[in-house]
Amino acid sequence: MTRTSLENFNCSFARTADLIGDKWTLLIIRDAFYGTHSFSDFKASLGAAPTVLTSRLQQLCDKGILEKVQGRPGVDRFDYHLTERGKALFPVVLSIMQWGDTWIFGEGKEPIRIVERETGAPLLPVSVQAQDGHPVEPRNVAFAPGPGASAATVKALEKMKRRAGGVAVQPSRSRPSV
Amino acid sequence: MTRTSLENFNCSFARTADLIGDKWTLLIIRDAFYGTHSFSDFKASLGAAPTVLTSRLQQLCDKGILEKVQGRPGVDRFDYHLTERGKALFPVVLSIMQWGDTWIFGEGKEPIRIVERETGAPLLPVSVQAQDGHPVEPRNVAFAPGPGASAATVKALEKMKRRAGGVAVQPSRSRPSV
Repeated sequence: MTRTSLENFNCSFARTADLIGDKWTLLIIRDAFYGTHSFSDFKASLGAAPTVLTSRLQQLCDKGILEKVQGRPGVDRFDYHLTERGKALFPVVLSIMQWGDTWIFGEGKEPIRIVERETGAPLLPVSVQAQDGHPVEPRNVAFAPGPGASAATVKALEKMKRRAGGVAVQPSRSRPSV
Repeated sequence: MTRTSLENFNCSFARTADLIGDKWTLLIIRDAFYGTHSFSDFKASLGAAPTVLTSRLQQLCDKGILEKVQGRPGVDRFDYHLTERGKALFPVVLSIMQWGDTWIFGEGKEPIRIVERETGAPLLPVSVQAQDGHPVEPRNVAFAPGPGASAATVKALEKMKRRAGGVAVQPSRSRPSV
C-alpha cells in the first residue's frame, strides 16, 4: 500500500514530519522565530508566491503552531505569532540551523551567529543527552515500545530488533553496565 | 522574485531545509537511525512508491547524508548507511520526535520510548542551552551577522532589528546584565 498521508502513523516523528516537513513551512517557522509577524514581511523575506505563503500560513494556524492576531490597521489584516506549541519547536529550528553551520558552511563561515541576547555569548550546539547531561551518540540509543505503542508499533520495533547491526533494540534492563 | 530553490540562500537553516525539508526524506533519515539499511526494508517500513523512495535515497546519497555500501547478495544491490554528516542530524531527528511526543500524543501516550541503550533510562528532552548549560528561551536569543554574513544577510538582520517586538536584535556587548 502506498500511503499518501502520514496522519495515521503511530509515530511522533512521522506525525510531526507531516506538519513541518515542507521547505516553505520550515522557513515560515524560522522567520517567526526571527520576529516576523506580518504577511507582507514574510513575503518580503521569503520571496514565496502569495498563494504558497497563504496556504502554508493557514496550515500552520490550523495545526496550532501559529495564531492570528490583529495586524497593523490599513497594512496587514492579521499578524501571525508562534503559539506555545510553535515556540516548542525552538530546538528543532536551532538544531537544523546549527547542522547547516557545521556541515554546509563550516566553522568560521557561519552566515548568522545565534547568541544569548543578554550576554552576546554563543549558544551550545543542540545535543542529545542522557539524564545526567552526558552526550549520547546514535549507537548508544535504543527505541522501545512506549505507553502509546500500537500492536503495529510493537511489531515494527521487534522487526528492527532482529535486524542485525541496527540501533533499534529494546534495552535489557538486567544487562550489567560495562 | 519567486525563488524556486533555496540553494543560494545565505542561511544555514534554509540550506538545510532544502536538503531535508520533505516528508519522505525525513522518514528515510528516521528509519536510517532505527537501523534500516536496505531498499526493501525502507519500502516495507514506509510504504512509499518505489520511484519516490529511489529518488529520495539517491538525493540523500548525492548530498552526503547516506552512502551506498554493498548489499546482501541476491537481495539488495546496495545498502544505505548514514555518513558522519548524516549521523550529525541526530539532534534534529530526536527534537522532532520529542516535539510530537509532547504536542501531538502527550505525556503517557508516547508510541516509542527513546532510551539509553545500556541503562534503559530515558533521554533528556533536546533543548537550547547557553554555554553554562542553562536553558535558553526563544525570547532570550538574538541573531547577529556571523563571519560568513553576506551584505544581504547583514541587511536582513538590520531590518529584523528595527522591527518592534522581534527577537532578532544584535546583542549589545556593552549593555550590563540585569
